[in-house]
Amino acid sequence: MNKLDTIIEKIVPADESAKESASARVDSLIKPIGSLGRLEDLAVQLAGITGRVNNSFEKKCTVVMSSDNGVVEEGVASSPQEITAMQTVNMLKGITGISVLSKAAGSDIRVVDIGVKSDLDYPGLLVRKIKHGTDNMAKGPAMTRDEAIASIEAGIEIVEELVAEGYSILGTGEMGIGNTSTSSAVAMVLTGCGEEAIGKGAGLDDEAYRKKKEVISNAISLNRPDSSDPIDVLSKVGGLDIGGLTGCFLGAAYHRIPVFVDGVISAVAALLACRLNPNVKGYILPSHISMEPAYRIVMEELGLRPFLDMDMRLGEGSGCPMGFQIVDMACAMMNNMATFDEISLSDDFLVDIR
Amino acid sequence: MNKLDTIIEKIVPADESAKESASARVDSLIKPIGSLGRLEDLAVQLAGITGRVNNSFEKKCTVVMSSDNGVVEEGVASSPQEITAMQTVNMLKGITGISVLSKAAGSDIRVVDIGVKSDLDYPGLLVRKIKHGTDNMAKGPAMTRDEAIASIEAGIEIVEELVAEGYSILGTGEMGIGNTSTSSAVAMVLTGCGEEAIGKGAGLDDEAYRKKKEVISNAISLNRPDSSDPIDVLSKVGGLDIGGLTGCFLGAAYHRIPVFVDGVISAVAALLACRLNPNVKGYILPSHISMEPAYRIVMEELGLRPFLDMDMRLGEGSGCPMGFQIVDMACAMMNNMATFDEISLSDDFLVDIR
Repeated sequence: MNKLDTIIEKIVPADESAKESASARVDSLIKPIGSLGRLEDLAVQLAGITGRVNNSFEKKCTVVMSSDNGVVEEGVASSPQEITAMQTVNMLKGITGISVLSKAAGSDIRVVDIGVKSDLDYPGLLVRKIKHGTDNMAKGPAMTRDEAIASIEAGIEIVEELVAEGYSILGTGEMGIGNTSTSSAVAMVLTGCGEEAIGKGAGLDDEAYRKKKEVISNAISLNRPDSSDPIDVLSKVGGLDIGGLTGCFLGAAYHRIPVFVDGVISAVAALLACRLNPNVKGYILPSHISMEPAYRIVMEELGLRPFLDMDMRLGEGSGCPMGFQIVDMACAMMNNMATFDEISLSDDFLVDIR
Repeated sequence: MNKLDTIIEKIVPADESAKESASARVDSLIKPIGSLGRLEDLAVQLAGITGRVNNSFEKKCTVVMSSDNGVVEEGVASSPQEITAMQTVNMLKGITGISVLSKAAGSDIRVVDIGVKSDLDYPGLLVRKIKHGTDNMAKGPAMTRDEAIASIEAGIEIVEELVAEGYSILGTGEMGIGNTSTSSAVAMVLTGCGEEAIGKGAGLDDEAYRKKKEVISNAISLNRPDSSDPIDVLSKVGGLDIGGLTGCFLGAAYHRIPVFVDGVISAVAALLACRLNPNVKGYILPSHISMEPAYRIVMEELGLRPFLDMDMRLGEGSGCPMGFQIVDMACAMMNNMATFDEISLSDDFLVDIR
């Protein structure tokens, strides 16, 4: 059995008993029942993930998977392919969106070259290159089945390393020109939806948008991915970034740490991971509503509702730092609010405001 | 001219020129145009408020106005009136929702007794009591016109003090059993909407909910507030907490600092402030979607769309600490991301990803 199958087999469901205890504590806090809404639900979910009622997540990291996509030669992207390499390095320089938002939120990033076309070398870059960009899915499979498995395993290994370093909560982001095309293709195959899943990415004009839809639909017809086999779908019409992030979701669930889904690429990876083992779902947290149409379709399939409504569509995992802050709030509620029992012991009156 | 009129007269619109400069800088950052969505809009709004393109808000404070409402003797609230006093003290003890969320977000609170029925004395409590709770609006005006003006002026003075202490961004919260009734009444008069503005507050049963609607509608019929005169509306069917928060919105706009609207009581106060001077609107930021029905009606009237979708309905200003964190993110984007010009100077290639 390969590493991937071993991990998939060992992912357990979230701890229902810890969730029940957490729920009881939430209801004992000095507030009307349910009045902190989804902050309460989040605290309960976190308990299910870690198995502990009280949690705090000191070391936080967003993993950014960078890779190129052969399909860009069909003209499906508004930006030149070189941007993938350039922004991968700029993230490590601390000057991109995810870099500055992470720093402001007190969280870290790890940038992984899982398949950038050019060879990169920059301090801090984690090089786990499976290949120099995928092949063009308009002409054949994006990668082999073995490459798809290797990309997922690379993501799992990154999570192992981060857990060993003491990280206890993760975010997921990506950089890869052309990856809204691959994500839309995977979403269409996995959910059975049509071209309504395809958006304009970073900003296509109408003609290029029409072309993008045609290219994606043709790639699906040509490669005939098996929708019941997530690895087959990933290898035929996916990307190395999607594979790496799928590994991050599996790895986080295996290690029982929470992991944020962010934009559409990350959401598609989350769906792949859940198709490999439905237990993964309990470990996934939503950040913001992405503007890409496939995002909403996939999140509905996952049963997840975002916390933030920011009209963001940058990618890079840019919603994760804000998600981490919301998790901090849920933990503060759980750990630091008083319970009715506590105030009845210290005060000379107890009134039930529940 | 009284203090209130002087302040109202001096509130200027947000600085359009600073907003234009900020918008140009946002569009020069290394990301596709518009891809950070409402974080970009927020950075531009902050520039309009302060008059500076680059901002950072180190000292943040949520002002919590506590007061009692005479109308509770009609049975419109699910909790006993003593809760107002108890929770006012508990906030200062650091054990309520707003206390723990503020601490986790690195922000402060100021708790103001602007009209709690009992006399309170606790370290840190700001006593600005206008009267010992309002009168019962089901039997006559909640307060006199002079008391309404005094409550607004108390809010303005609190903001003056906070600005003198170096606070540069504010949140608004409240504690006051019965204040969803007063807020709904004010919202109905100001917007002309009907009983659809009335919700179940902290948790009324169906019979009590029916009674609440009847009491509020009758109070409006009895007192006949003049919808074109915000002070008249506040005095007849409002509350001292609403008055104090109205003063906070006016004071923040006067001092040109951003101020968050939070729950329904705060939203109604924001609307009163905007009716007193429409320039106030440019200084108001939205936090989360409150579950009270009047909230949505008032926010639509204000043209504000919340950032967070948390199903919260605690009050206390509990969404403000999360709002502060989003502001920090917008500032980090504006202050720390590189521009295309900057990377073209330092790198050997420039590619336009816009």
